[in-house]
Amino acid sequence: MTTAVSVSLADLNSAVAERSTGRLQAIIIGSSDVKLSGVAALASATRSDLAFLANPLYRADALTSRAGAIVLNAADRDALQSQSAPLTASLTAMAVCEQPYAWFAYAAQILNPEDSVKAGIADGAHVADSARIHPSARVDAGATIAEGAGIGAGAWIGAGAVIGARTVIGDAARIYPRAVVLDDCRIGARCIVHSGAVIGSDGFGFAPLDGRYIKIPQVGAVVIGDDVEVGANTTIDRGAMGDTIIEDGVKLDNQVQIAHNCVIGAHTVIAGCVGIAGSTRIGKGCRIGGAAMIGGHLQIADGSSIGPATPVPSSVTEPGHYTAFFPLMKHREWERAAAVLRNLPELRSRVRQLEAEHKAVELKPGK
Amino acid sequence: MTTAVSVSLADLNSAVAERSTGRLQAIIIGSSDVKLSGVAALASATRSDLAFLANPLYRADALTSRAGAIVLNAADRDALQSQSAPLTASLTAMAVCEQPYAWFAYAAQILNPEDSVKAGIADGAHVADSARIHPSARVDAGATIAEGAGIGAGAWIGAGAVIGARTVIGDAARIYPRAVVLDDCRIGARCIVHSGAVIGSDGFGFAPLDGRYIKIPQVGAVVIGDDVEVGANTTIDRGAMGDTIIEDGVKLDNQVQIAHNCVIGAHTVIAGCVGIAGSTRIGKGCRIGGAAMIGGHLQIADGSSIGPATPVPSSVTEPGHYTAFFPLMKHREWERAAAVLRNLPELRSRVRQLEAEHKAVELKPGK
Amino acid sequence: MTTAVSVSLADLNSAVAERSTGRLQAIIIGSSDVKLSGVAALASATRSDLAFLANPLYRADALTSRAGAIVLNAADRDALQSQSAPLTASLTAMAVCEQPYAWFAYAAQILNPEDSVKAGIADGAHVADSARIHPSARVDAGATIAEGAGIGAGAWIGAGAVIGARTVIGDAARIYPRAVVLDDCRIGARCIVHSGAVIGSDGFGFAPLDGRYIKIPQVGAVVIGDDVEVGANTTIDRGAMGDTIIEDGVKLDNQVQIAHNCVIGAHTVIAGCVGIAGSTRIGKGCRIGGAAMIGGHLQIADGSSIGPATPVPSSVTEPGHYTAFFPLMKHREWERAAAVLRNLPELRSRVRQLEAEHKAVELKPGK
Repeated sequence: MTTAVSVSLADLNSAVAERSTGRLQAIIIGSSDVKLSGVAALASATRSDLAFLANPLYRADALTSRAGAIVLNAADRDALQSQSAPLTASLTAMAVCEQPYAWFAYAAQILNPEDSVKAGIADGAHVADSARIHPSARVDAGATIAEGAGIGAGAWIGAGAVIGARTVIGDAARIYPRAVVLDDCRIGARCIVHSGAVIGSDGFGFAPLDGRYIKIPQVGAVVIGDDVEVGANTTIDRGAMGDTIIEDGVKLDNQVQIAHNCVIGAHTVIAGCVGIAGSTRIGKGCRIGGAAMIGGHLQIADGSSIGPATPVPSSVTEPGHYTAFFPLMKHREWERAAAVLRNLPELRSRVRQLEAEHKAVELKPGK
Repeated sequence: MTTAVSVSLADLNSAVAERSTGRLQAIIIGSSDVKLSGVAALASATRSDLAFLANPLYRADALTSRAGAIVLNAADRDALQSQSAPLTASLTAMAVCEQPYAWFAYAAQILNPEDSVKAGIADGAHVADSARIHPSARVDAGATIAEGAGIGAGAWIGAGAVIGARTVIGDAARIYPRAVVLDDCRIGARCIVHSGAVIGSDGFGFAPLDGRYIKIPQVGAVVIGDDVEVGANTTIDRGAMGDTIIEDGVKLDNQVQIAHNCVIGAHTVIAGCVGIAGSTRIGKGCRIGGAAMIGGHLQIADGSSIGPATPVPSSVTEPGHYTAFFPLMKHREWERAAAVLRNLPELRSRVRQLEAEHKAVELKPGK
Repeated sequence: MTTAVSVSLADLNSAVAERSTGRLQAIIIGSSDVKLSGVAALASATRSDLAFLANPLYRADALTSRAGAIVLNAADRDALQSQSAPLTASLTAMAVCEQPYAWFAYAAQILNPEDSVKAGIADGAHVADSARIHPSARVDAGATIAEGAGIGAGAWIGAGAVIGARTVIGDAARIYPRAVVLDDCRIGARCIVHSGAVIGSDGFGFAPLDGRYIKIPQVGAVVIGDDVEVGANTTIDRGAMGDTIIEDGVKLDNQVQIAHNCVIGAHTVIAGCVGIAGSTRIGKGCRIGGAAMIGGHLQIADGSSIGPATPVPSSVTEPGHYTAFFPLMKHREWERAAAVLRNLPELRSRVRQLEAEHKAVELKPGK
């Protein structure tokens, strides 16, 4: 939950500069004292809203926007200002910078500050005697904190969340209602774990014997770095031997499944419904599209980009943008294409045969 | 939980007519006073069961069924009655109507009424002082209702469910055990939210900067209309700016993921494991097959049908039935087809080359 | 949670033989009194660890491993012993048997025994008066046990788990924190249900009428045999009429979705993110790869193997290994291949045309 505040555009610019440690600073055009208290899309913004223009396709929306201020880059500003005066007049103020979307992100955080965590353990929370809860942390009703767990400064454990034995939750981490972090795991500072996520469930490890399966105890844990976000109902299994590792800054969307002993490199983003099988190492700075399915025991090179709905059955050693899904068709066309697809090897043979025969025919007249 | 009742077929027919406000009324053939207390499949039904025949493939099952009554349409009745007397004699009664499956659905509801909700707040429920719980609503043990939330008349909040601050749950809605509806959301009347569903989790929104990702606060909410069903472990993210909207009568199966700012049109049904990326608008009356994956910022036309396991990377402007998945093959055949598929552009070039050469050869003899 | 113990290799061998009722017994080479207290991968093992070699690819790791003991088969032992003496000297002991991975699985269980369940109902658990909890069972804080439920001997109900009315949990079953088993279901002995799993949610059953959907009450249940494992956030719907059935020894990974009235045959393993639509019967001893999607009302033959990310739209009557996914490509190559794929029927027509014309040309010279 956040509470809106009201800030002038000039003050907002200073605050963004501070929050980005000087990296982002905009040039203000127009009224720098316009008061902003929220963010909105260009088309729906009102006078108290900040909006952003990060895609030239939306320039027309910017020209008619009623936003109090728009953040955009120099090229878009030039394009807007080259339009006729009556249109640009509708813009109260512009904040011009190289990275308008990042500037907007910080500004939106400043305009929508998280409620400060009210320290304390609620009635109806179940906290083991040996758990160490920092005095500035908050534990809500129905949450369970098991033996030996540690909850960091300013951390929030939501209603009904479960923190396992000896698990450590970093400072300022936010564990949303009904998330579960099982025994012996570590969650870094400022992590956000959304509702329904399960961290530290057993990996899927069995040895076959005589048509049955014998469970292999999963004795590793899950170790999550700082500034990681874990989406709703996402699952991250504990390692079989050794740990499953999520490095700093990784962002996982909802319903992602990460199997035992995976390593997800720092600052990789993984969209919803992705599955990653066991012992796979995803590099740093990768982008994995929604519903991609990545096989086990693979290596994905740093900086790779995997498209949505794309199965990855083998390692990706060369960074690049990879895709693999069947193109969308009307059902009847699909049926026809699928029928030919089933016989592709035969079609290739027929082409080879034609090539061979053609060569023979071609030679004959020359003889 | 439901409790079975016992009703004569005549009374059941009246009750279905009433529940469908006169839309569905069957003609009874045979014993209209047969007492029914449950529903069953044709093959396993006993004398106290109602069964249905909605697919001609199952006519043989109908002929040998021991059901107390069967609901079916006129064509199926004619087919059954043209069979020899000893066979049709096994049928005690038939209810004949145009929409036998819909008639059966209402009849099944009547034969298996939901237990009436016992009003009251259980010991062990955690309810904020400022929450407004209708006197006829029920809140089970371990559930949490946060500040300012409102629970409607006859609504049920199951064990361990979490209702966020200022969230409103409509009249007669049923929130199953351990479902989570986060802050500031609205759930319409008569909605059913199954266990493990998470409504109102943060959308997946980040601005990249220098190889890291800055979180964009998700300040919208989720607004769900009336008569919506949300499956187990389904996730619906709150909007980034503006709301995620699920219109009246939508049915979502289990493990569906709906990203921020989607709009799902009224009376659309979405089967299990479907993912829908951000800001996509699904039209009204669509049918989305299981595990379909729909990209972001798309429009799907009203009345569209998307097949199972089908990725949708672009908008569907023309209603119809769309499909896109690789046809199933024995692994070895798939390996061969996949190898040719990788070189399809080359195969096409070879065909073009043959066509060009063939033309040349053809011309030569004529010279 | 498990607690490590320390055992000599000789004693471990005896214990494995006992646990496998004589099926597995290794021949010890080297120091049979080496004390082992854990398991580890070959590369990271130390003197107190047991490691395994089950794949000849890792023989080099075995030669340099610092493990206290390695379990392997005779062929691998021969290969290692044919290496030069200084290398084999690094191995303290070897346990040689035909099924080294199964031997390792039992040994790992022995070295990491589950904590014995401390009997009792925690303060903060919500147990209905009519529920029958075996005196040796344990119910953790925040768990809810509804009316008429039965919890078997030595069973564990984790924090915040919900057990529905009249549901029976078998002896020694482990229901992890926040799992939900709804009303009238049965979970067999020694089952493990991981966190966030939902068993017994309503199946997705509606009858269409005039553009709307009428809910069909789901009056069946879920019946799960003995020794079944259900992964985190997996969902298993109750039957519409009749039950959804999971037979003995089935292993389900995380985020699997099993729809109403499916039957999963004994000792079948299903990897993560798999979806199975309604009324499908999966045979015994099948292996279903991650993210496979299996249609409704199908039969999959005993012993079938379905590859990962493979949609199955029709029954599999002949056991074998089936696959169906688009091969991975660089995005630009995929775009080209997809374009040709869309026109495959036309390409085939052109090949047919060439064949016909070729025949005509061939015939001409012969005239």
